[in-house]
Amino acid sequence: MGQFKGVTLGGNVIIEEDVLLEEGVEIGHNSVILKGTHIKKNTKIGNNCVIGIKPQGNNRMRGNNSSTTLLISENVKIGNLVSIYSGTSIGQNVFIGDHASIRENVAIDQDTVVGRAAIIELNTTIGKACTIQTLVYVTGDTIIEDRVFIGPCVSMSNDKYMGKQEFELKGPIIKTGACIGNNATLLPGVTIGEEAIVGAGAVITKSVIPKDIVIGNPGRPL
Amino acid sequence: MGQFKGVTLGGNVIIEEDVLLEEGVEIGHNSVILKGTHIKKNTKIGNNCVIGIKPQGNNRMRGNNSSTTLLISENVKIGNLVSIYSGTSIGQNVFIGDHASIRENVAIDQDTVVGRAAIIELNTTIGKACTIQTLVYVTGDTIIEDRVFIGPCVSMSNDKYMGKQEFELKGPIIKTGACIGNNATLLPGVTIGEEAIVGAGAVITKSVIPKDIVIGNPGRPL
Amino acid sequence: MGQFKGVTLGGNVIIEEDVLLEEGVEIGHNSVILKGTHIKKNTKIGNNCVIGIKPQGNNRMRGNNSSTTLLISENVKIGNLVSIYSGTSIGQNVFIGDHASIRENVAIDQDTVVGRAAIIELNTTIGKACTIQTLVYVTGDTIIEDRVFIGPCVSMSNDKYMGKQEFELKGPIIKTGACIGNNATLLPGVTIGEEAIVGAGAVITKSVIPKDIVIGNPGRPL
Repeated sequence: MGQFKGVTLGGNVIIEEDVLLEEGVEIGHNSVILKGTHIKKNTKIGNNCVIGIKPQGNNRMRGNNSSTTLLISENVKIGNLVSIYSGTSIGQNVFIGDHASIRENVAIDQDTVVGRAAIIELNTTIGKACTIQTLVYVTGDTIIEDRVFIGPCVSMSNDKYMGKQEFELKGPIIKTGACIGNNATLLPGVTIGEEAIVGAGAVITKSVIPKDIVIGNPGRPL
Repeated sequence: MGQFKGVTLGGNVIIEEDVLLEEGVEIGHNSVILKGTHIKKNTKIGNNCVIGIKPQGNNRMRGNNSSTTLLISENVKIGNLVSIYSGTSIGQNVFIGDHASIRENVAIDQDTVVGRAAIIELNTTIGKACTIQTLVYVTGDTIIEDRVFIGPCVSMSNDKYMGKQEFELKGPIIKTGACIGNNATLLPGVTIGEEAIVGAGAVITKSVIPKDIVIGNPGRPL
Repeated sequence: MGQFKGVTLGGNVIIEEDVLLEEGVEIGHNSVILKGTHIKKNTKIGNNCVIGIKPQGNNRMRGNNSSTTLLISENVKIGNLVSIYSGTSIGQNVFIGDHASIRENVAIDQDTVVGRAAIIELNTTIGKACTIQTLVYVTGDTIIEDRVFIGPCVSMSNDKYMGKQEFELKGPIIKTGACIGNNATLLPGVTIGEEAIVGAGAVITKSVIPKDIVIGNPGRPL
């Protein structure tokens, strides 16, 4: 049990084999830390979480060759009832709210906030100091750069033909400093330019140029 | 314990009386299997799930006489932190994502995918090989036929007068092969015809004829 | 253990110190009741819940001085996989659905229903006999009066400048008897007047006068 020196564990915690918990780590009650998880110094995980999940699917879902390691850096705070997959890395000082879910092959850079019940799908990268608010849905194959603000309940998709024909899945690209208002809808593959603003409730069917402000359904410049 | 032959149970699993687990079933850590649940061969349930919940309400919610049995068929995969009610049946090879919730008196036919954090309300039927994506809200009293695609964050409702007067609750009817784009809004009782397409972010106030394509707020043919 | 007289506890329940459970309280399996929680007579809490969470944040989130007590009144029903923070009070006969999350400094008055996976953010007050349906997002600093109906997936925000400049955070004010249709979007600080109706999918950028009916994007009187 040498790898658990200076670690605080709640009641009924389950820790599988091949787990590395560094000094100062705290794990809440009833949380499950699965095989292959590495949690660095002073990171705190809440109660009833499931950390280090291996991807699976049914016969109608795409395969996956992700790494079997989950790396959570120093001073991360993870809420309660959270699920995080293996094959993902989470940077220093990141905050992840209660009920959030983060899939495999995701990279989240330092100081970013992921709101409660937000969902980050597979193969997505999120930059530094972003704010992803409550109940945001970040689809798979999305690129979010640094200091992006995504308001509550924003929805994205990555499948242009909704399963009707072959298509390379492609989520949005959201450039540095862009802001997306609450409950906006982003279609597959759109780019939101640097420092652009998407209004609350807007439906973005085409890319938005840097610093532009776009509102309405369909979205048009203000 | 004869009924648990060939079953794999995680740590701290709770199994109440009157539960039947067939050979090859796997139950993750900290999951709770409540009275009256029957899980068929080779089905896998993740960690921290609650399976077989009995309906309850407060003095302002409608009553319910559902069956006390939950039937989950062969080769089903259920994620983590999922809740499923009694009085429901789930077909072979269904996949149910993490954080999803499925109410009582629901029938989901084989090969369907229910995305993560999707919610299926009571008295709803879902056909074969449907894709219900992440964070979709399927209201009560809804009929979804076969091979329907529902994109992320789609919202439905079934109460035309929003609690202001008596009304027979009636969800949408979504016919075979229809596709609904992400974050679309469906009003009570609308029918989406066979192979019709509803655009992302559209607000559907009237029924859509087969093969039509409808976009905008309010929705109109393209 | 005198404070647990007449209380029913499921398996693997964790109860921290300084918890008061009155007669007739029931706690489901694998639930966690944290320090400073007081639960009154005949209240029922489901399985795998986390109750009485202390607020925390990272270096980019606002501080909080909330009380360390959570008060849940008589005859409340709380579902499964629910999270509730300390510094909050929940009135008699309230119903809280599965997967819901309620933050600190929230007051919910008697007979109100909070739907499954609904999220109520901090510093918010909700009146008597309201219906907050499934997956609703109630932002921080919101005032909801009595007998308000909020349909599924309604989204609100409280940050006019999306983190770009200083701004007093201000959620919507929703007056007595107002109804909000499903997947509507409310911008920061708007007032929805008494008995007003907001249509499904509407985007509300300006306040709505009493008894008015507003639809569309942007919202305009019918």
